[in-house]
Amino acid sequence: MAKSISFARGAPSLDIIDVDGLRDAAARAFANDPAGVTAYGTSVGYPPLRDWIAERHQVDPKQVLVTNGSLQADAFLFDVLVEPGDSVIVERPTYDRTLLSLRGRGADVRMVELEPDGIDVAAVERVLAAGARPKLAHIIPNFQNPAGYTLSSAKRERLLELARGHEFTVFEDDPYVALRFEGAPLATMLSMDGEQVVYASSFSKTVCPGIRVGYLIGPAELIARVAKVATNTYISPSMVAQAIVLEFCRSGALERSIETVKAALRERAEALSQALRRELPDARFVEPEGGYFVWIDLPRGTDVGALFVAAAERDVHFVKGADFVLEGAESSLRLAYSGVTPAEIEEGVAGLAEAYHALAPGAPRAALAQRP
Amino acid sequence: MAKSISFARGAPSLDIIDVDGLRDAAARAFANDPAGVTAYGTSVGYPPLRDWIAERHQVDPKQVLVTNGSLQADAFLFDVLVEPGDSVIVERPTYDRTLLSLRGRGADVRMVELEPDGIDVAAVERVLAAGARPKLAHIIPNFQNPAGYTLSSAKRERLLELARGHEFTVFEDDPYVALRFEGAPLATMLSMDGEQVVYASSFSKTVCPGIRVGYLIGPAELIARVAKVATNTYISPSMVAQAIVLEFCRSGALERSIETVKAALRERAEALSQALRRELPDARFVEPEGGYFVWIDLPRGTDVGALFVAAAERDVHFVKGADFVLEGAESSLRLAYSGVTPAEIEEGVAGLAEAYHALAPGAPRAALAQRP
Repeated sequence: MAKSISFARGAPSLDIIDVDGLRDAAARAFANDPAGVTAYGTSVGYPPLRDWIAERHQVDPKQVLVTNGSLQADAFLFDVLVEPGDSVIVERPTYDRTLLSLRGRGADVRMVELEPDGIDVAAVERVLAAGARPKLAHIIPNFQNPAGYTLSSAKRERLLELARGHEFTVFEDDPYVALRFEGAPLATMLSMDGEQVVYASSFSKTVCPGIRVGYLIGPAELIARVAKVATNTYISPSMVAQAIVLEFCRSGALERSIETVKAALRERAEALSQALRRELPDARFVEPEGGYFVWIDLPRGTDVGALFVAAAERDVHFVKGADFVLEGAESSLRLAYSGVTPAEIEEGVAGLAEAYHALAPGAPRAALAQRP
Repeated sequence: MAKSISFARGAPSLDIIDVDGLRDAAARAFANDPAGVTAYGTSVGYPPLRDWIAERHQVDPKQVLVTNGSLQADAFLFDVLVEPGDSVIVERPTYDRTLLSLRGRGADVRMVELEPDGIDVAAVERVLAAGARPKLAHIIPNFQNPAGYTLSSAKRERLLELARGHEFTVFEDDPYVALRFEGAPLATMLSMDGEQVVYASSFSKTVCPGIRVGYLIGPAELIARVAKVATNTYISPSMVAQAIVLEFCRSGALERSIETVKAALRERAEALSQALRRELPDARFVEPEGGYFVWIDLPRGTDVGALFVAAAERDVHFVKGADFVLEGAESSLRLAYSGVTPAEIEEGVAGLAEAYHALAPGAPRAALAQRP
């Protein structure tokens, strides 16, 4: 294979980033607010961006804290809310860094199966009925990482009922919300219940990752506690980066960028689905309606660890399903299509299929298009 | 008093920040390396800036980690090195946020008196002889915050001998090193012993605070451990902010900015010393040779808590000495001259003196210039 093709990293390719828009936003940031941009600022973030986010989500600015990327927001929130031994519900599978962060804090992580319409709320009820008293339920509601699935409206409502009844916080981790390219958007849980929900999102997927701007929204009292941890950790996040994001948003470049990104993701997701159906008919997956990821289940018994090695030998890379769970998922994998063009997707899936067939010589090699 | 005058915050005033230089650096950053600037990057920092810093300090790039400000670097280092109960030597007085950070981690903080030529190394020896086994000694060698004092060459050497003999790390926290406006620069302890020293510095004082770019230099193995903590905390710091700093440095704007800042600080320090000698002859202080701060000792028995209130009523602000120690320093205060013009310094010292004389009516009101 001529060049390395990575389905591993959940990151956009350079061609769908508005670099000129960022350069212009930077020039305006220094021109419009030199004092605010160059001074220390405060740990709640660059105040005009905080206001912009608050308006976007229809909350009080006191409920918003803007951080150096949203993973940092998670870390601060966990610092405040999660003590060793506290139980925390997470989806199975879920984002590997969240798992690591919770386990690093000694949390009692309870994984609950993720279904194509979101976390299995009946299973959450069973966990609660069995006596668990979770502090938090960590939920990635839209185009989940790693599965690509979206939590249905009915399940959002039910989860909030459970949170109120059992007094836990729903941590709605929502970096992909703006990237819906099919179907109708759903209301955020934050908008449905401002008391029970802490919400996180990011500009990594709509502006660019390298700017490192994410945010947290929650009850003002909680945000004040998080802000104190943030002050003691880094005084303040980059005012320069946050002011560039603000100017980018205000100018309309954000909405244009989102359209560019969505169009590319739609095309890439379609190319991936078609290539998988054609080249790897054993793969079972749900076609995504947004976001970056497709979760692939291969036939039980498939050794995805071996597939990982065989694919890498063909210079095709992905993340093993096992990395997103505490145990199991040995026959699953995550493919990210955000950073690869349709041509690269064709080539990458061909390499992946070749690796798969080398390991499973008897498996079907091609098929008519079929939806799982 | 017409307007609030703050000697409280260790931050530069806007007039000594090269805002146009920053704007131009930002434009070049997006033009020269759009892929590197907009992508996630890695937790060790923007690689070309890491290389630049390594060259500046004559170390291997693997020894450098560039962070979101240098306080964040401290936090990561303490996460890796300091366990609850570990003893850590710090200067008395020292930077309040370092104290808070160490105490928050349950460290056994051993304060050792700071003298005008730096930490009392004989007292460090006594602490060691008494059986202390410190993990770290935190030292701000140049123009210390809050005292403004500088560690002499002889004491630097002795401290390193002690560190080698007693197997502790010297954490050389050096954000003010470039701001010497009098006297000859001293070699960093890092350059004297690369094994025993972890070094931190920052661009907050030479570029601007709002960019939030600091760094850590240490043994490559330790830096790799710190990088892992950083990855799990925020994936990576802002590549955009770090690329702007790199372009600012490369273009020569950094050296020009340092000259501007030093000239202003020299003028401000001189204005402050003169005003203090004239208006507040009871104040004992060492005239600074660089940096942002002057430490003032008032006669024993002076209630600086009351002075703080009386000065604030006159809209003059400072930080109480007691904030920089675990106990004591009730008659001392820190004045930062970095963010105030000579005219503001005149007015602020007049207000401070008025507050002091209101509390101590019998104290001398004016004096000929005298050096303490």
